[in-house]
Amino acid sequence: MQRITVAYGDGIGPEIMESTIKILNAANANLEYDVIETGEKVYLQGNTAGISSDSWSYLKNNKIFLKAPITTPQGGGYKSLNVTIRKTLGLFANVRPCVAYTPYVKSYFPTMDLVIIRENEEDLYAGIEHRQTDEVFQALKLISIPGTEKIVRYAFEYAKANNRKKVTCMTKDNIMKLCDGAFHSIFNEIGEEYPEIEKDHMIIDIGAAMIADKPERFDVIVTLNLYGDIVSDIAAQIAGSVGLGGSSNVGEGFAMFEAIHGSAPDIAGQDKANPSGLINGAVMMLVHLGKNEIASKIQNALLKTLEDGIHTGDIYNSQNSTKLVGTKEFTDAVIARLGQKPSILKPIEYSNESKPILLKKYVPKPKLKKELVGVDVFLCWDDQDRDPNIIGEIITSITGIRFKLKMITNRGVKVYPNGMKETFCTDHWRCRFVSIKSMVVDEEEMDLEPIAQSDIVYLLDKIDRKGLDFIKIENLYNFDGKAGYSMGQGE
Amino acid sequence: MQRITVAYGDGIGPEIMESTIKILNAANANLEYDVIETGEKVYLQGNTAGISSDSWSYLKNNKIFLKAPITTPQGGGYKSLNVTIRKTLGLFANVRPCVAYTPYVKSYFPTMDLVIIRENEEDLYAGIEHRQTDEVFQALKLISIPGTEKIVRYAFEYAKANNRKKVTCMTKDNIMKLCDGAFHSIFNEIGEEYPEIEKDHMIIDIGAAMIADKPERFDVIVTLNLYGDIVSDIAAQIAGSVGLGGSSNVGEGFAMFEAIHGSAPDIAGQDKANPSGLINGAVMMLVHLGKNEIASKIQNALLKTLEDGIHTGDIYNSQNSTKLVGTKEFTDAVIARLGQKPSILKPIEYSNESKPILLKKYVPKPKLKKELVGVDVFLCWDDQDRDPNIIGEIITSITGIRFKLKMITNRGVKVYPNGMKETFCTDHWRCRFVSIKSMVVDEEEMDLEPIAQSDIVYLLDKIDRKGLDFIKIENLYNFDGKAGYSMGQGE
Repeated sequence: MQRITVAYGDGIGPEIMESTIKILNAANANLEYDVIETGEKVYLQGNTAGISSDSWSYLKNNKIFLKAPITTPQGGGYKSLNVTIRKTLGLFANVRPCVAYTPYVKSYFPTMDLVIIRENEEDLYAGIEHRQTDEVFQALKLISIPGTEKIVRYAFEYAKANNRKKVTCMTKDNIMKLCDGAFHSIFNEIGEEYPEIEKDHMIIDIGAAMIADKPERFDVIVTLNLYGDIVSDIAAQIAGSVGLGGSSNVGEGFAMFEAIHGSAPDIAGQDKANPSGLINGAVMMLVHLGKNEIASKIQNALLKTLEDGIHTGDIYNSQNSTKLVGTKEFTDAVIARLGQKPSILKPIEYSNESKPILLKKYVPKPKLKKELVGVDVFLCWDDQDRDPNIIGEIITSITGIRFKLKMITNRGVKVYPNGMKETFCTDHWRCRFVSIKSMVVDEEEMDLEPIAQSDIVYLLDKIDRKGLDFIKIENLYNFDGKAGYSMGQGE
Repeated sequence: MQRITVAYGDGIGPEIMESTIKILNAANANLEYDVIETGEKVYLQGNTAGISSDSWSYLKNNKIFLKAPITTPQGGGYKSLNVTIRKTLGLFANVRPCVAYTPYVKSYFPTMDLVIIRENEEDLYAGIEHRQTDEVFQALKLISIPGTEKIVRYAFEYAKANNRKKVTCMTKDNIMKLCDGAFHSIFNEIGEEYPEIEKDHMIIDIGAAMIADKPERFDVIVTLNLYGDIVSDIAAQIAGSVGLGGSSNVGEGFAMFEAIHGSAPDIAGQDKANPSGLINGAVMMLVHLGKNEIASKIQNALLKTLEDGIHTGDIYNSQNSTKLVGTKEFTDAVIARLGQKPSILKPIEYSNESKPILLKKYVPKPKLKKELVGVDVFLCWDDQDRDPNIIGEIITSITGIRFKLKMITNRGVKVYPNGMKETFCTDHWRCRFVSIKSMVVDEEEMDLEPIAQSDIVYLLDKIDRKGLDFIKIENLYNFDGKAGYSMGQGE
């Protein structure tokens, strides 16, 4: 008997979870359930993470979590529970199959059948934000090599296990050459280990447009967290209804399965919700657990119910529907069809040989030679009509013997030296200091000492004593002699 | 006689610019042209910005710039010329009308007619990236209040001037509560000044999905730079062909007009390119200059050419095309139709009263009360199996009398105190120090001094002396008593 953790969630969550569990039991999935509280109720008890500490022990012991949608209350600094669970349990891969069910669910793309594999832990979703001045807010986008390697390798392993032919990587590496550039180059590197799978890369804006217009072209797509969030909603939407999609969130040890839609509080408690999304999530869970026969049985019954025109209000239409049903009646219709197969839609048969994908544990790489070569100091400055030449001269006067002021930028555009007077300046200035040593080309002077962290402390001390307001710093490093920082626009 | 600056660009640029200027002249647009060099050639001469300093004087004097697509060479640290021009001249608004031309250009959405107004200077496109450790790369997303106010006000003014009924704002403020939250709340604030226009907000992932699936629902959309980049490509693509779209980039003093497509080097010099995108860009320029009659004349001739089935290869199809033509023959066909109007497609008539949209100059707001309450210090640390409790104890031992260590996070997830042993840790640690004063609730002790910048310098000095490797800091401020920083996941 397999124990799993379940959460009934908020809004329509309890109704669709009840439906899903009823179907799982009717299909003899042989599961036992530990129910935990999550979401709105827990948030409003004052727990900003939306989950009590007791609940974590169930998640950790059972390892498998079937979760209904929850509501995060607006305002009040509540953190997204989904993000917290994914990140704490290391659920690095979000897998979303998007298949068209025409003619029962309308789609312009009847042969569409793609899977989006979205990185789940990093990117702007780390949620690290700072208001730095009266005028400027900042969020950090963080991309790691281990995180990228895991998601890219998972995408190739998934493709291999599911007999998929092609993996397309999407990034914005023409703009973010370091972060997105790293993702793209790791894709190229790891891709070489899978010669049987076709590889492809697209810039995310073009890629999203192509998914919207010609989704049949795609097979497996792997991408960063934010881009994946956007393109997986596009793909689900144009495949038919977001109400039908399930997804899995998979890590090295744990896995969570859910519907892709939200908690839809407007129709909660009215027996109107379509439970197909969570049912599809549960089917992915059964496959993950190796219960492939039961997974096939439930999914085929679901397809047969669709095919028989028994539809909830979200997909009901006069042409293909025979009966408008509520959540409960839909559930009973699926149960009544357990053991049947669809005849127009393609029946599903999960391979008996399919196994959970197991990734090699990440092994840290040999360290690169890291050299400190400068520092970006960000200032809040709002004096003297924000004239870049004035702040430039003040800063130049305190650089000392270790550093040279290379440039000042405002919103990424170089404004000193030789800026353009037309450039609009906020109260937020980035001053790039580089070590004198790194500027010297004359061989004889190369025995200057490299800068140390203590030089940065000393520089900040001078900035402070000058009465300037530093709001943040970013050290500049070379890694194996290669600059680990971008140039300013117009540098 | 109006002087404008033109750049012939790379790839198919010269062919489509030649076509566009021929049409402008044939329509008696009464323009004079100063030609500047941009793009690949300039980059490869060693100018990393892709534009020589001589060229800037033309741009500044003429104020109006018609630009063909350019190629940014791969690798070598070249900065995007488009981004540099937009940012240096303060072209904060990118305006992209996306209209369907069915049946001549295939689209599932024949009544689609929306305009995307994309913030053009900020967001991740500031291009500020740092590799901070062996494992972690970072990009900064920067959102400013003046930048947001300008784009939001422009969107409402554009809607008003173009007789549009509704403006939809798209953000991801459920995740990025500070940055995207600021954008959303400024949209709400400024929206109140336009009671006659309907207002709406959507989360970007749902919004992008809705644009892809039901674009007829939208009228004007205003959004941040990256989201705008993605949704404007989606909208152009599903409207028919990216090859037909023009766009404007508008600032307080300057404006640039271009096609939305790239330089397509694969078909360059073969007389195959469709010049419609740049022609549409030039039409937007004529309207901007108040030459509305000529703008209508050219756009109607272009529509009539489409309607007559005279098509370049990108949109040629046996059902609606009568003749497959090259760039030159297409150009002559448009010129031959100057003065004619389409009879199936809707003819264009730009109002004689339309004027360029002029925005009020941004006036800085009264300063908020800013209080320094702590600092996030980011460390590179790769010892002791990366055990968060070990680094937590080391750090706690050096906090001193000013600060308390509130928490340590890794990729945004709290790992100390009371982290979960399952959380995967990179070599990149964020240590949040808060002032003792801010922790004290006892009234009697409230006469503790608030922390000063010098306390941060002193803290960094201690971290340095302890042999720890700090890679960046972010100061924590309250603004008018409200926290200007996000909590950690699981805090």
